[in-house]
Amino acid sequence: MPKISNKGIQMPESPIRKLVPYAEGAKKRGTKVYHLNIGQPDIKTPEVALQAVKNFDIKVLEYSHSAGFESYRNKLSAYYKNQGLPVDTKDIIITTGGSEALMFALGSTLDNGDEVIIPEPFYANYNGFATASGVKVVPVISGIETGFALPPMEAFEKLITPKTKAIMICNPGNPTGYLYSEAEINKLAEIVKKHDLFLIADEVYREFAYDGLKHYSVLNVPGLEQHAIMIDSVSKRFSMCGARIGCVVSKNEEFMATAMKFAQARLSPPTYAQVASEAALDTPQSYFDEVITEYVDRRNTLVQEMQKIEGVTIANPKGAFYCIAKLPVKNADDFAQWLLEEYDFNGETVMVAPAAGFYSTPGVGLDEIRIAYVLKKEDLIKSVEILKEALKVYKN
Amino acid sequence: MPKISNKGIQMPESPIRKLVPYAEGAKKRGTKVYHLNIGQPDIKTPEVALQAVKNFDIKVLEYSHSAGFESYRNKLSAYYKNQGLPVDTKDIIITTGGSEALMFALGSTLDNGDEVIIPEPFYANYNGFATASGVKVVPVISGIETGFALPPMEAFEKLITPKTKAIMICNPGNPTGYLYSEAEINKLAEIVKKHDLFLIADEVYREFAYDGLKHYSVLNVPGLEQHAIMIDSVSKRFSMCGARIGCVVSKNEEFMATAMKFAQARLSPPTYAQVASEAALDTPQSYFDEVITEYVDRRNTLVQEMQKIEGVTIANPKGAFYCIAKLPVKNADDFAQWLLEEYDFNGETVMVAPAAGFYSTPGVGLDEIRIAYVLKKEDLIKSVEILKEALKVYKN
Repeated sequence: MPKISNKGIQMPESPIRKLVPYAEGAKKRGTKVYHLNIGQPDIKTPEVALQAVKNFDIKVLEYSHSAGFESYRNKLSAYYKNQGLPVDTKDIIITTGGSEALMFALGSTLDNGDEVIIPEPFYANYNGFATASGVKVVPVISGIETGFALPPMEAFEKLITPKTKAIMICNPGNPTGYLYSEAEINKLAEIVKKHDLFLIADEVYREFAYDGLKHYSVLNVPGLEQHAIMIDSVSKRFSMCGARIGCVVSKNEEFMATAMKFAQARLSPPTYAQVASEAALDTPQSYFDEVITEYVDRRNTLVQEMQKIEGVTIANPKGAFYCIAKLPVKNADDFAQWLLEEYDFNGETVMVAPAAGFYSTPGVGLDEIRIAYVLKKEDLIKSVEILKEALKVYKN
Repeated sequence: MPKISNKGIQMPESPIRKLVPYAEGAKKRGTKVYHLNIGQPDIKTPEVALQAVKNFDIKVLEYSHSAGFESYRNKLSAYYKNQGLPVDTKDIIITTGGSEALMFALGSTLDNGDEVIIPEPFYANYNGFATASGVKVVPVISGIETGFALPPMEAFEKLITPKTKAIMICNPGNPTGYLYSEAEINKLAEIVKKHDLFLIADEVYREFAYDGLKHYSVLNVPGLEQHAIMIDSVSKRFSMCGARIGCVVSKNEEFMATAMKFAQARLSPPTYAQVASEAALDTPQSYFDEVITEYVDRRNTLVQEMQKIEGVTIANPKGAFYCIAKLPVKNADDFAQWLLEEYDFNGETVMVAPAAGFYSTPGVGLDEIRIAYVLKKEDLIKSVEILKEALKVYKN
């Protein structure tokens, strides 16, 4: 039998993959499962986007430009400028999801064996993209005790080697919900300039900033033009995860020309999804206002209810729709499995994502879970009640 | 300034990229340009696929399963079985175009520095996917004098090293139009079994087999189950290149589990495009019959007209919609540029793809071009006339 590549063997599995059969088992037993584990929002996709696809009249479903529709890039540039980001059409390549944007960014800046420093916990798929690209993730730990604030610069500097080519952040963060302050972004800007690194910022949750806080993009930092690479996506902004449209944005022309070669190799991003994404830019502000109000309400409910459970610590998220909670359990992985395999409270249980999968350092975050507050308020209240009752009877 | 990766620097550009500004220049001068250079068919997308998207009623555009809709995979399995290919649902992962299927196949079977042997000339983007994956393409030359038949097995065996992990073919071939015979596929099967390699077959043009010849898939070879990986796509079959839907198919469970990890990292293939692709499977046979008749007619026209030009050799393609022609010029790259930059015949010219970009060995195929016969017959006749007149006056 021919051998699978080492790369393939090292490709990580999703942190919740092991739990899926148990969730299916629970459903088969008739137990209702509340999904706190996934980032699939229940928010409606803007009607203007869905209608644009219905009205898209064509005879041949053709390739688009490898960088995406020019009309879409123009409109996106205007959208960013309106948000205070100095992004021209030439600074944008439309990608198949934020995922592909990340692959292009890593491929254009890191070679096999090169290192990218990422504050952990981080979006678990970064490990997958890094492995697929043959590069090494070097984690720098941020902890629940600081609410997952940016680690001190000394912690970064200690990890920088000649192989370090980039620092990558997710802002606001998945899985932490942490929103970096302007001061924190400026600190990162200093360090990447000092060591001549790229700063890759996954800003797909940009609009999800709460409590009157303003998102500060790496594209906002004066003098960072040659270092800053921004990753974006329509998935969460317009609740259209299934479109698979994102983009990579940079003022660095050499980087953009290189990313464009990756884009040309795969020909083009999906056409229908670009039609939807371009139209989505006409979504009225009232849509976002409602969505943000809804998420703040959900977050407040979740945090408030979780804080009532004895032994639980929760980092109050300022953005995105995730948060990390520390539970009074030894191993959140076992607990999550037990919830699905053995437990129910009045015929209902919850599925959570054990947070260890979001850390790269072994043994860290074992007693933490990630909660995605993408369910409606009543369901969140029920879910937390189930967690509370479950913790009462769970034997570590 | 931070440095671009070596991988990024080595990413090849499209063979026609240099020509694009000249084509734009020609159009600006008012010269009509016939595009013989691209694989974007003018054939209509099946109505059933376009209508399915229009009728797709949703409130939230959600992620699909990472392996693609189960309903689509089931239907695709039935489709393959109907074509005589023993493909079960579990043997299929839906991908974002054939491109992503190739990336998953290479990533799952080759590590950094590993080698994949590919008969050249080959689809130029294989170089891009290989570079992005950190693997090395080892070309084995096939020539126009044999019509691009499979090179002798000794030529392959000479190139096999401990780093060789796979042989890759495109069948029928882009850019050659060559259709491998059952005997040739069986020879490849022997060699991959002998050396314990994977055999990756890009079969996206499977249905485009002419002159009563039958396409013979790597999935048809008894005993090759653990070695055979098939790459497929809806792009050409249903003239829906813009969908960006393909799939990777294998009976090797370890390979499929590995490819699935790559699939999970990027979450899911595009939803709208899957709706179109699933519906496209209901396309009536009459559609394909008409398409094949049309392509055979185009091919016959093209080959017949090209053969009338003195000094031109053309390999009569048995499949796909490309062919390679050897011209009486020293450098087809210069000739292609000249056609766009300086030449016109009654206000019209042609854009062709210089074939050197499809060879990996430097200096080979310099006097060859690839022609995509995706234009209607009258335009093909005009295009060849322009080529003929141009060759009369072109000074090498």
